Amino acid sequence: MSAFRELMAHQRETEALAQVAGRLAWDQETVMPRGAAAQRAEESGAMSLVLHARRTDPRIGAWLAAAEDEVEDEVSRAQLRHIRREHERTLRVPGDLASALARQTALAQGRWAEARAADDFAGFAPVLAEIVALKREEGAALADGGDVYDALLDDYEPGATAAGLDAMFGALRPRLVALRERALGQGARARLGGRFPADKQMGLARQLARTFGYDTTRGRLDKAVHPFSSGSGDDVRITTRTEEDDPFNCLYSTIHEVGHACYEQAIDPAYALTPLGRGVSMGVHESQSRIYENQLGRSRAFTGWLLGEMRHAFGDIAVADADAFYAIVNRLHRGFIRTEADEVQYNLHILLRYDLERALIAGDLPARDLEGAWNDRFAADFGYSVTRASQGCLQDVHWAVGLFGYFPTYTLGNVYAGCLHRALRAAVPDLDAQLATGDLGPAGAWLRENVQRHGGRYLPRDLIERACGAAPDEGPLLAYLEEKFGALYPDG
Amino acid sequence: MSAFRELMAHQRETEALAQVAGRLAWDQETVMPRGAAAQRAEESGAMSLVLHARRTDPRIGAWLAAAEDEVEDEVSRAQLRHIRREHERTLRVPGDLASALARQTALAQGRWAEARAADDFAGFAPVLAEIVALKREEGAALADGGDVYDALLDDYEPGATAAGLDAMFGALRPRLVALRERALGQGARARLGGRFPADKQMGLARQLARTFGYDTTRGRLDKAVHPFSSGSGDDVRITTRTEEDDPFNCLYSTIHEVGHACYEQAIDPAYALTPLGRGVSMGVHESQSRIYENQLGRSRAFTGWLLGEMRHAFGDIAVADADAFYAIVNRLHRGFIRTEADEVQYNLHILLRYDLERALIAGDLPARDLEGAWNDRFAADFGYSVTRASQGCLQDVHWAVGLFGYFPTYTLGNVYAGCLHRALRAAVPDLDAQLATGDLGPAGAWLRENVQRHGGRYLPRDLIERACGAAPDEGPLLAYLEEKFGALYPDG
Repeated sequence: MSAFRELMAHQRETEALAQVAGRLAWDQETVMPRGAAAQRAEESGAMSLVLHARRTDPRIGAWLAAAEDEVEDEVSRAQLRHIRREHERTLRVPGDLASALARQTALAQGRWAEARAADDFAGFAPVLAEIVALKREEGAALADGGDVYDALLDDYEPGATAAGLDAMFGALRPRLVALRERALGQGARARLGGRFPADKQMGLARQLARTFGYDTTRGRLDKAVHPFSSGSGDDVRITTRTEEDDPFNCLYSTIHEVGHACYEQAIDPAYALTPLGRGVSMGVHESQSRIYENQLGRSRAFTGWLLGEMRHAFGDIAVADADAFYAIVNRLHRGFIRTEADEVQYNLHILLRYDLERALIAGDLPARDLEGAWNDRFAADFGYSVTRASQGCLQDVHWAVGLFGYFPTYTLGNVYAGCLHRALRAAVPDLDAQLATGDLGPAGAWLRENVQRHGGRYLPRDLIERACGAAPDEGPLLAYLEEKFGALYPDG
Repeated sequence: MSAFRELMAHQRETEALAQVAGRLAWDQETVMPRGAAAQRAEESGAMSLVLHARRTDPRIGAWLAAAEDEVEDEVSRAQLRHIRREHERTLRVPGDLASALARQTALAQGRWAEARAADDFAGFAPVLAEIVALKREEGAALADGGDVYDALLDDYEPGATAAGLDAMFGALRPRLVALRERALGQGARARLGGRFPADKQMGLARQLARTFGYDTTRGRLDKAVHPFSSGSGDDVRITTRTEEDDPFNCLYSTIHEVGHACYEQAIDPAYALTPLGRGVSMGVHESQSRIYENQLGRSRAFTGWLLGEMRHAFGDIAVADADAFYAIVNRLHRGFIRTEADEVQYNLHILLRYDLERALIAGDLPARDLEGAWNDRFAADFGYSVTRASQGCLQDVHWAVGLFGYFPTYTLGNVYAGCLHRALRAAVPDLDAQLATGDLGPAGAWLRENVQRHGGRYLPRDLIERACGAAPDEGPLLAYLEEKFGALYPDG
């Protein structure tokens, strides 16, 4: 057998085992008995060790070297690129450091939950300081002389650099701040009133999942504390949650996760259980979830159709007409919590985290000073003050579990979604007429054809450029937001 | 680190991975999207390879040899006994044979399902012949000069031999046949009439699971095509099924699986994720499921309480009184299907299979002649004729997937349950008064103390002898059945 074939056979089993580990995590969040947590930690730990051993198998280096000369087609070369990337990453991080990170982040997750519940940042700061120190060490090992933050970022968004993001994010901030000030300056708008039974929310969520193209013969929708999407290929599962006084939480979380899931489900089956058989980056993944949720799902055309479905599901609801419903779905509101933010303010939450985590990793911001820095920045960007750490720097689990360089991919995903939305509108001129009838078919087909089916075949920026005909930039997202929210919140 | 500690650390990870593989199988039968089957086969296959590699790790032999001199306490020696047993088993079966068996049984399962659906034994016979040939080869490898069938049997019931079973089973057959002839000679008795909504059956099933001591914080009950129990320690899950015209199918399947699950849940936590942390054999496992289901669950005392619960769950049901209800729960009825058989006839179904599979493995019965042999034997034991292979030799999946030596453990479990029931009645004299109020507490406590908590600590026969004060034999089971069904079906 050729080295390439041996390598791919090895990789295929590793990918299959990674799917098993992912299913175990799904199980933990959805159906696991609560008394099983300690045993599950051992089971998951054993799976991690198996995967680590496979990924550090010394044969991989030799296979890679020999396979280089064996394959010439672009798909095979893309496979080798992914495998080499992961292999080199694994080799660069010393085993002791990898173990320490696994141990400390597992520990820190529990400490973070306790600290958040007690609004006690000071108690968590030493834990965070330890995580930051380990991540700086890991970043330095990965960077091999290059930029430490870039090396961490590259894990989630191959090819992205802080320098590249800085210009993009710098252009977003003032215009987003201006937009939020204009909108919120007009006073608070009412949210949707009434009670919406959980079982009816789930019924409508299932309908929306199908409407957006989720293949439920190769996936399933369950409830969990946090919405997420999990798995690749023919077993891609999503979760959502219900709050009886806020049906949009359930419905738009579902559409968001359906975006992630449709991406995984649409990848060329020829790539199944290979490195190309997964979404290519966190940013591109988020672009799919966001364009489904926002540019499509929160559009005037689609919400007009959704209102009818909501009346069908819940009976009469307290909304005058489709325009009023659209305004409620897209209402801007004050708030401290990223995951509850609207389209305009969401990216402000991210930009704050991006700047702070870069300072943490650079060593410019000691972990103990994070709360103060967070609160100062929040007041500057949002105009009101954080009073509790659980509504400030302790609200997200990311840093506690070592995810540095991850937050910016959320905004990058929104930027990509802006670019894709512009290209989609050009390719499907009567998109609104379709959305107004709940027809996501042509929009989904365009995204499948131009983005989703390619899996890991192209680098993220190249993929977006191929789909849109231009390199990604923040212009289309800003134009979309300013047009949409300018109309929703017109100047006095 | 000592060799014993290294060995146990290795084993602990293997046990944790085996739990993961088991959870994956649970997932497949309960929640897996139907389109995920092909991908799941690769995922399960990859897990099997991981487990096989760990179990054939060449370090195990050296660790075992060194550990022999390191430990003296009985528990550690029992651990070594289990690990050596599994290690030697693995070493004796050539890798090629193990692969061929895995491949052929996976293939045969699909062919069996097709053949059963088409009532086509002739089409399946060559597949079965291949499986039998491979199992004979495996048995010979395991037997290492000893009896081939015993070697296969030992996989499921350590220490059991065909010679030992022959006397036991030979004594059962004529008295069971006599009992069935007497009962069925009185004509058919009516089954329970009415419709029983599935959701109410599940509600009562959940209540019964708790009543019998199932810890739902460390387990869960779901619906599946076939009832089963899965997992050990703190994550032991069970399934059941519902048929709207037969609530006893759901309720007694649940109690049966609860018996299996309570055994796993009650094992000493000090044995968790070690070879002692699982039920010791198929026979002992079945003894727990059967004593919960039959000697306790189908007793006059308990069914009196259950009738009240059924009326509470379903409203008025068409039963005159508790005696009539007891008679319906325990009605004997003609039928071809093992899994639908009553307490008296169940073991006749097993004895038939036991004799036939011994003949297959001995080479005395060619696979192509199985259908004829089955039908002849069935007519002799049951007094009426099989007309379709799906109601005869194709009804069970066991042989198609290579389970030879497994069937007799069902009857062995009933024999053990008979012994345990006699000892339990002696230890808990007012058992019926407790059962009549739905109180399974003292019965469960006695079984936990005398059987369940020990896990794999003792050999099966030794375990039963410790619990009952005498070596297991068929006497108590026969006495119980003849007394119970003699009273239910009194002589003219």
